[in-house]
This record gives sequence, structure tokens and C-alpha cells, in this order.
Amino acid sequence: MSSTPDNQTAPAASVLSLRRVAIDTYRENVAYLHRDCAIYRAEGFQALSKVEVRANGRKILASLNVVDDPCIVGSNQLGLSEDAFAQLNVEDGHPAYISQAEPPSSIPALHHKIAGERLGREDFRAIVRDIAEHRYSKIELTAFVVACNQGELDREEVYFLTDAMAQVGRRLDWREHPVVDKHCIGGIPGNRTSMLVVPIVAAHGMLCPKTSSRAITSPAGTADTMEVLANVEPPFERLCDIVREHRGCLAWGGTSDLSPADDVLISVERPLSIDSPGQMVASILSKKVAAGSTHLLLDIPVGPTAKVRSMPEAQRLRKLFEFVASRLGLTIDVIITDGRQPIGNGIGPVLEARDVMRVLENDPRAPMDLRQKALRLAGRMLEFDPDVRGGDGYAIARDILDSGRALAKMRAIIEAQGAKPFDHNQPELAPQRFEVCAQQDGVIIGIDNLLVARVARLAGAPKVQGAGVDLLKKMGDPVKAGEPVYRVYAAFPSDLEFARQATVRSAGFEVGERDAIPPVYVEM
Amino acid sequence: MSSTPDNQTAPAASVLSLRRVAIDTYRENVAYLHRDCAIYRAEGFQALSKVEVRANGRKILASLNVVDDPCIVGSNQLGLSEDAFAQLNVEDGHPAYISQAEPPSSIPALHHKIAGERLGREDFRAIVRDIAEHRYSKIELTAFVVACNQGELDREEVYFLTDAMAQVGRRLDWREHPVVDKHCIGGIPGNRTSMLVVPIVAAHGMLCPKTSSRAITSPAGTADTMEVLANVEPPFERLCDIVREHRGCLAWGGTSDLSPADDVLISVERPLSIDSPGQMVASILSKKVAAGSTHLLLDIPVGPTAKVRSMPEAQRLRKLFEFVASRLGLTIDVIITDGRQPIGNGIGPVLEARDVMRVLENDPRAPMDLRQKALRLAGRMLEFDPDVRGGDGYAIARDILDSGRALAKMRAIIEAQGAKPFDHNQPELAPQRFEVCAQQDGVIIGIDNLLVARVARLAGAPKVQGAGVDLLKKMGDPVKAGEPVYRVYAAFPSDLEFARQATVRSAGFEVGERDAIPPVYVEM
Repeated sequence: MSSTPDNQTAPAASVLSLRRVAIDTYRENVAYLHRDCAIYRAEGFQALSKVEVRANGRKILASLNVVDDPCIVGSNQLGLSEDAFAQLNVEDGHPAYISQAEPPSSIPALHHKIAGERLGREDFRAIVRDIAEHRYSKIELTAFVVACNQGELDREEVYFLTDAMAQVGRRLDWREHPVVDKHCIGGIPGNRTSMLVVPIVAAHGMLCPKTSSRAITSPAGTADTMEVLANVEPPFERLCDIVREHRGCLAWGGTSDLSPADDVLISVERPLSIDSPGQMVASILSKKVAAGSTHLLLDIPVGPTAKVRSMPEAQRLRKLFEFVASRLGLTIDVIITDGRQPIGNGIGPVLEARDVMRVLENDPRAPMDLRQKALRLAGRMLEFDPDVRGGDGYAIARDILDSGRALAKMRAIIEAQGAKPFDHNQPELAPQRFEVCAQQDGVIIGIDNLLVARVARLAGAPKVQGAGVDLLKKMGDPVKAGEPVYRVYAAFPSDLEFARQATVRSAGFEVGERDAIPPVYVEM
Repeated sequence: MSSTPDNQTAPAASVLSLRRVAIDTYRENVAYLHRDCAIYRAEGFQALSKVEVRANGRKILASLNVVDDPCIVGSNQLGLSEDAFAQLNVEDGHPAYISQAEPPSSIPALHHKIAGERLGREDFRAIVRDIAEHRYSKIELTAFVVACNQGELDREEVYFLTDAMAQVGRRLDWREHPVVDKHCIGGIPGNRTSMLVVPIVAAHGMLCPKTSSRAITSPAGTADTMEVLANVEPPFERLCDIVREHRGCLAWGGTSDLSPADDVLISVERPLSIDSPGQMVASILSKKVAAGSTHLLLDIPVGPTAKVRSMPEAQRLRKLFEFVASRLGLTIDVIITDGRQPIGNGIGPVLEARDVMRVLENDPRAPMDLRQKALRLAGRMLEFDPDVRGGDGYAIARDILDSGRALAKMRAIIEAQGAKPFDHNQPELAPQRFEVCAQQDGVIIGIDNLLVARVARLAGAPKVQGAGVDLLKKMGDPVKAGEPVYRVYAAFPSDLEFARQATVRSAGFEVGERDAIPPVYVEM
């Protein structure tokens, strides 16, 4: 009898009828087989076995769940969870084949990493390819993430990992130079600078195809806030047209298949709250390189409740970004910024969109800190333009903003992506509210980024667009006892109550003497 | 409004009707909520969120899957996977409450371990308690296992972990002394010594309440083989009666709730093939202490394809077992044995049961190596008896076996647990067969434990009791070219073909000159 791989499953009559099982298993492919299915019995599958499903010329990997209810799957059917079913692009009833999945070929390399060894370029390539193809189980993924975190990758390994991640999936080539992008490592509520920087830089004429994420653990990502104003998921080809015509966009990057391994890794890093420097660098830079960026402005906020809490830590992270970017041929400008408190007033999609539009419209109610930071970042980005003299960027950016050209560019981008009705004078905020007030007279000397973000999230942001926190006072502002410091908006009484309980445990701000305000050591 | 924990979920009308969803998710509790369920929407759950389900005075944790098909769950129902449903001990339709699960309290300790720090006794207690209560996700579990593996626990930490594992779950107290047990670290096919040692030791009058596992990655565990002869899952109270009456038993330990955290950890260690010394010691010793054993004989086989491959490695493992056992107050005798090849001829439940019964019946076809090893182990165990002089154990064991007293004791235990029909002269072997033959004349100089086990497993063992491998030659036996070395039994043509393909890649034995046989460095 032949022993070629193609014949391996031949002895079993392994054709089944596909069935969409309407269960959302969140990025994890699950296959459902009835316990009486002849193939289940013959192949010696076990629950949670990794299986390979082939149909319509495609193949996917899935974890197996065994079912005893013919209403879910019959004994000659092969059920697939929603995501998995969609990947095969077929109708219910399509014939499909199932077999034991071969173990991923990079598993020996994974074991070396678990044992604390240093990996080479090919090892990382093999691992990243298997991860992007969903060949790793959650357990194997976690093992990789924890092993890389605990042993700490050296900077050469971080480069190998980043490069491998950028190589997998789609790679864009804009056929011009420079292609600029900006990125913040996150952790600061509000801080919606991209929605100001992109129109300023695009109005100047630089190509800035900005894609952003939705919130993962924060109360809003740029994509969530932009979604208040415009469609953020135009089809990929349409997005490319928009970028070419308007020199910029503000879209969600989730479906663009840029560095797909990153999305898979995040599904494990997020629940573990692991955010090691190596993984952060690989995640950010692989996406930028895959997106065709040639120049990147990177914002590292530092503060007692920011992701990076000290200047030496920020400098180490800056060096790592610079080393890896240089190996990748990416020009990078790393800026360490003031992360002592949220940037802007609103936290949550609608509240943040309000702040952004007020800055663009030069409204007197616009938060000055958001305007200032956006102008400085945009200024540094403009200096990527070989025709802009070092030091001139800020003035150019301010001119573009003050003249209304940034607003016009933003309106053009919004129209192109598909505008939604929004009036920043009457933002649609969630109806349930409460205010958190100062207990004593004094000056606001600290605002806890983490707590304020948590309260906004408990209140329903970003799922409820109008939910969140509106800061009425910022650091340095005087307050009187009983005066409100921030207001919480929620759609549902239960959400409001969760948020309120969080503020009871800790209000999230401190009142004291003006000279107790922690100093800023950073450029801006 | 009050902010006591009891009121946290009060704002939502959170009562749902329980529904058993007939999906076997293998030890992972899964809750299914319809996307239109008001609570799903209001509570801000996400797919894969960890939720707490309360009903009937019990509470369990589960991962959430979101469902769009009312045939699986309706919008006012709460579906639970089979295992999860069983844990609540209710009927379909019972009212139930669901809420966001609080994160496990030991997560800060987990993060310390991920960061490579040493943990103290209380840290391990907190982690193990959360693991046993299923509060850890697969991701958190994996992070713990990999972090402990990579950082290598020191021996004091191994003791803390073992003790914490033994403290959780049921603890037996037999109210006599000594209570003896034996354990092999595994990895050697066949090697069914427990089924000989237990009747010998029990016939001598020592209390030996032996519980065993089913095969995890091997072609048969003691429980699988014993199941050919008898019921291995008598109710717990009945099992205690059997032990008291017959001084021993041979049962499956899976439902006895001894060191339940171990079972949870294994669900992650197994797919990663992680078997670090610390985790092995904690797993084995926590179960023995929880089972009320006072004396343990531990078998560490050494050989080129065994789990432990060198004498220094075996000695290090021995020291670790001795240190932890001593801290736990458990008397241990560690024996390093010859693990160069399988012990006995049969590999697979029926074939192994045949070998065991032949040894007990003093049948001339009984494999001598199995008999010898069992006698030596039983002899050392008998020396735990203060009335047996050091060195006399072997002779006493041999006398018990040769006189038929061991067979009589085995028959009594089989009867007590519930006998199954079995005739070792006509074992019911699977009908599909093939033989693997020598390619040249010579002497068998090596047998690959791993390959032989893999072939037996591919052939269907242990699921198919009559499937497996029967070794016709062992190391040192002369063979002629074309003469069969082993025979493979399978129930299904597809299984036979899988097994055959494995033997094509490597036959699993070597033929050569007699003086090429690797020497034994070990006691037996």
C-alpha cells in the first residue's frame, strides 16, 4: 500500500457535509463532530484534537469539540464555528474532509525557546508562519509568548521576530517616498492626536495612510473614535484610492491582513497583560513595515500611571525601537512625551470626537493640551519632508491648523470614507450620568490614567459610543470642595453603577498644593 | 446606592434558564449565551470572557461563547457544555445567574513567576487553589507551567507546590500504618508491574490502595489494562470497602478528587510535552500524599529512549523526589531500573492483561522480564514492613507468586471490583494484523520505546482494547532475515495503515552483533 501523504486519509471514507454552527468562538476555529460520526471513531480523534478541514480548495485548522445533539451537527456533518466557516467561503452542505492535523513544523524551535535558548532568523520565520496560519493552539501560543517574555529576547532576536512578522501576510507598496506614519505605544486615555496629525500632514501633501486599532483594553482606539464621524471599514481597494486622492486616511487596520501573526499573538498577550519591550517593538514595527511606511514617528508617553514609568525605561525602549527600525530600513523618530495624565478632556468615542473636532474648528472650548501635542507631533512628522528645515515643522503645522486647511482635509477624508452625522456642539452622550467631586479645596496634582480608563470602560466605552468620562479639571487646575472634577456617562443603569463603584474605591485624582505636582522631564 | 459585593449584579435582571448544550469541550467549561440575550448586551461580556455561573447553591467558572442560533440557546437561556452542566447538578430549565468573573486573586503571584521571581509557600497555595477551582484560563495555566519550567523551580519551591497541590481536594486517611504504594515515572511500554506488585503485597497483608491513571500519551495505563479484567470505576465508598477487606485494589484514580489541580495542569503539560522534574515530582507526590500513602516505592527507568536517558539525570531526579518526600513526611524508596526496552511482550490493554495473567498463573509463556521486575519491586515494597528483614523481600515475594497466593489475591480483587470475562489463552485481539520483520540475520540490539508505543497507539490502543503491538523478540534474542520481530493488531484498516506507515519510516528495532547491546548500569 502506498504511504504518500495524499493517501494517508484514503482508507477512511472521510467526506462530510459542512454545516455552519452559529457559535462565535472569538478567533479560535472550532470544528464540531457528532460522537457517532464514523470518522470521529475511526480516526481516534479526541476532544480538543487539532484537526485539518479541507473544502473548496482551502484548508483550515480547528480544535475539535464532540457533540451529542443532532440539532447541532448530525453524524455525517462537520460543523464549524462562524469564523472558521467563513474562512472556507462555501455554502452549508458543501463537501469537506477532515483529518488529524500534522503538528506545526516549528514546534522543535518552540521547545528550544521554552528551554531558554536563543533562536535564529529561520526559527522565528518558522514559528511566525505557523502562528499566522493558525497552526498553534492557544497553549502553544502562550508558551511562545511567556518563553519570549521570561527569557527576554536580545535585540537581534527582536529584529528577527519583527522581520518574520512583517514578511507574513499582505505587504503594501505605495510606490512613493516618504510614506509617513505615527504611532503611540498607548496607555494614555483620550490622546486622540492621530485624528489631528493625519489631516495636518496630509494637507501638507505627505502620504499618510493611517490605519488604527479598535480599543482592546482601553475605552477607545482611534478607529472607535473615528467611527463616530465616518465609516472606518471601507473595502481595501477603496481605501487605497482614498489615500492616493486625499494623501491620507483614518481607517481600521483589522481586516487588512498586515502582520496577521501580530493579531494572533495579541489574543494571548492581552489576557495575560504581557507587554514586554520586545513584543511591543515587534508588534508595532511589523505592522508599519507591512503597511509600506518608510518613516515613523513614535510617541512614548512617560508618567507614574503610563505604560512606561521612568525616563531610563523610556530610553531603553527608544534604543530598542531605533535598533530594530534601522535593521528594517525604516526611518524612525522617537519622541518621549508627558504621560502624567489623559490628553484632552473626553474619554470614550463621542467625547473624544468632540474634542478633536473642536481643535480642528479652532473652537475656544478645544482642549489646549490636545492641540499642543498634536501640533508638536505633526511638526516633527513634517520634518520627514526633505524640503522642511529642521525646527520649522511646528510653525507649518500650526499654520495648517489655524488656517482651516486641516479641517478641510479632515472633512474630505470623512466624506471619502463615508460620513456619519455628528455635531460637536450637541454630541450624543449617553443619558445616565454622575459626577465625581473634589473633597477639599486645592489644586489637581495628579490624575490616574488607569483608573479613569477603567471607569470609562465600565461605563460602557467603547461599545456604547456615547459612554465615557469627561474631565472637567486637569492637572494644575484649582478646585473647591464639592466641585465636580469629572462626569461619567453611561447608557445603562448597571454600567453606571459598576463605574460608580470603581470611583468609590478610588476617585482617580488627587487634590493638594500646587508645588506637589510631579515635574515633567520630557520634551513635551 | 450600596456598593457591597452582593449587590454588584443587582441592577441587571440576571436570571436565565439553564440549558444543557451537548458539546464535549474536554475539561473546559463553556457557557453559551445568545447574542440577543439582554444580559450579554448589558454586562458588556465579550466572547471568551470568563464568567461565573451560579445555580443550585453552586458556582462554576466558564468561558463564554456567543451564539446566533436559537436552536442551541434561546435569548433567555444560559447554555452550558456537558461537563459544566454536570457540575451544577440540576435539570434543564433550572434558574441560573451569570456575572463577570472576578479575576483570580493569585494573578499577581503568577505575574511574579512569569517575571522569573521565586515564589513562597502562600503564593503557591493561592495559585494552586485557583487552578483547582478552574479559575485559570488555558492561557493563564500555560503561562504558569511554562514560567515554572523555564525558570526551573528550586527544590524548596517544588515542595511548596507539591504540598499546596496535596492540600487541595480530597485527602484520605486509612487509619493504619504503613499504607504503601508504588509508582513508575512512565515512558516504558508494557511494564504492567503494578498489577503483579499489588496482589503480592496485599497477599502479604500490607495495605496497598493503588489507583492508576488511564493512558494519556501511552498505548495503555494500568487502569486501561486492569479494565480488561475488571471494573476499575467502583463508587468511592465501595472502593474503600474493597481495600479494607482485600488489603488492595487496582482502580482508576480519575474521579477520586485527589490533587485535582494536577489534572488541570496536565491538560496543559501534555499538549506541550512539558515534563520538567519539578512538575513531575509535584504531580506524583501530591497524589500519593492526598491518597493517604505513608510509604512509596518509585521506579525511574533509564535508557536511550526512556524518559530519563542518563544515570546522572536519574540521580538528580532521585534526590529531588527524596528531598520533597522527606519534607512531606512520606517515606520513599527510589529504584532506578533498566529502561532500554519495553517490559513484557504485549503493548496495549488486552496484550498486557494476557502477560500479567500468565505471570500470575506461572504459565511458561509468561515474559520473564516482567516477572523478574515485579518480584524485585514487590520485594523492596515488602521491606517497608518493619517485620521483614532487609534483603528478604525478594524471596518472600517470589514465594507469594509461585505458591499461587498472588493469583488468588488478584482474583479476589477482580471479583470485588466486578469481574469481566477474560481468558489469557484466547485473548480477544483485534482482527487486522501485520508483522514487522528483521532485514538481516543477527541479534536484537535495541528496541525503541517511543516508536513501539507510537505504533501501538496508531493501531488503536488503548481505545481499542485488543489493538497494540506484540513483541516476538526482545534484546539479545537472535533473529534471521525475514523473521517477524513484532506483530501489530488493529480493529480498523485505517488504523492498521497509520501504524504500518509509522513502521515504514522506522522499524523500531536494531539488529547487530551481540556485543553492540548497550550495557545496563542500573540495579535491575
